[in-house]
Amino acid sequence: MDVLSELIAEITRLPGIGPKSARRIVYHLLESPEEEARMLAERILEAREKIVSCELCGRYTSENPCSLCTDLRRNRSVLCIVESPQDVETFIATGAFDGLYHVLGGTLSPMDGIGPAQLRVDSLMSRLDGVEEVIIATNPTEAGNITALYLQQLLAGRDMRITRIASGVPVGGDLEYVDRGSLVHALKGRVPLD
Amino acid sequence: MDVLSELIAEITRLPGIGPKSARRIVYHLLESPEEEARMLAERILEAREKIVSCELCGRYTSENPCSLCTDLRRNRSVLCIVESPQDVETFIATGAFDGLYHVLGGTLSPMDGIGPAQLRVDSLMSRLDGVEEVIIATNPTEAGNITALYLQQLLAGRDMRITRIASGVPVGGDLEYVDRGSLVHALKGRVPLD
Repeated sequence: MDVLSELIAEITRLPGIGPKSARRIVYHLLESPEEEARMLAERILEAREKIVSCELCGRYTSENPCSLCTDLRRNRSVLCIVESPQDVETFIATGAFDGLYHVLGGTLSPMDGIGPAQLRVDSLMSRLDGVEEVIIATNPTEAGNITALYLQQLLAGRDMRITRIASGVPVGGDLEYVDRGSLVHALKGRVPLD
Repeated sequence: MDVLSELIAEITRLPGIGPKSARRIVYHLLESPEEEARMLAERILEAREKIVSCELCGRYTSENPCSLCTDLRRNRSVLCIVESPQDVETFIATGAFDGLYHVLGGTLSPMDGIGPAQLRVDSLMSRLDGVEEVIIATNPTEAGNITALYLQQLLAGRDMRITRIASGVPVGGDLEYVDRGSLVHALKGRVPLD
């Protein structure tokens, strides 16, 4: 394989990039100023070198502990548990939560050999001092729900609120296009209007 | 801006990649084996270093002249003129043409200061010895058509056929979804069935 095909193949391995998009990207890299291509390559290497998982929350960061965990203005009595580092960024983007986060690093999956020991459960337990509420924000999927149930049982008996993010119809969505599961959930979880 | 945001910003500059896709790609690069990220970065640098425009046809290549131009099995009496290096690859993928290619490097655009001198017109003229047919395969857009007209006039009077790729309804397409221009073209250019 020649240099061009090798680069296209490498870029096609990235998530969400098909062969056509990969080709477009490669031509863009060849046509843009050499500085731009060099910058991209260097940033990739720099990211792999400098970015680590925060020893406290588990999100990706270049400072350890990360800027969220060391931010004293955040509410340390609420801890939001998510599956992946990406999920933390998704919550941050909403600007609607000022507590701390904890990344589990996946969901329980005995079939794949993923038990509590493979997730960041021990480090979760070591962060619970002073926490008054734990929000379980694993995905509303089967694996996410099973993991939520496990965490609920694990944390039961402690003097703290344990909550789960609400599931239902997406805000701004059209009922016609909502999947059955979300609709059933929205019905079951209906709230009184006062 | 931190290392993570810088890499995401850099990847968002690539064509067809929005901020969300960029984020997914960056997390993939952080989660995959370090070797994969390093390989990608090195291939980008290698590509910029080794890939040049073929001095004959103008397509991207790591050998100069490129493997197509030096392939003696190809039909040297037919030359297909395209706008961009990508277009050559698109034709190659069809496997339906065994002649040579010539990349113009764009279309005429006097408003943007792009005249024949900014395109690979001189090198086209120097490649016409022994060519019996020139296929003008610029895009069926206004700029592509104007450029095709210019080439037609430039080559007129030479002892060769000058042809233009056919426009019409896309094969396999549904007439309901075909744009008006293509449909008009398909009607005007209708061919007898025998």
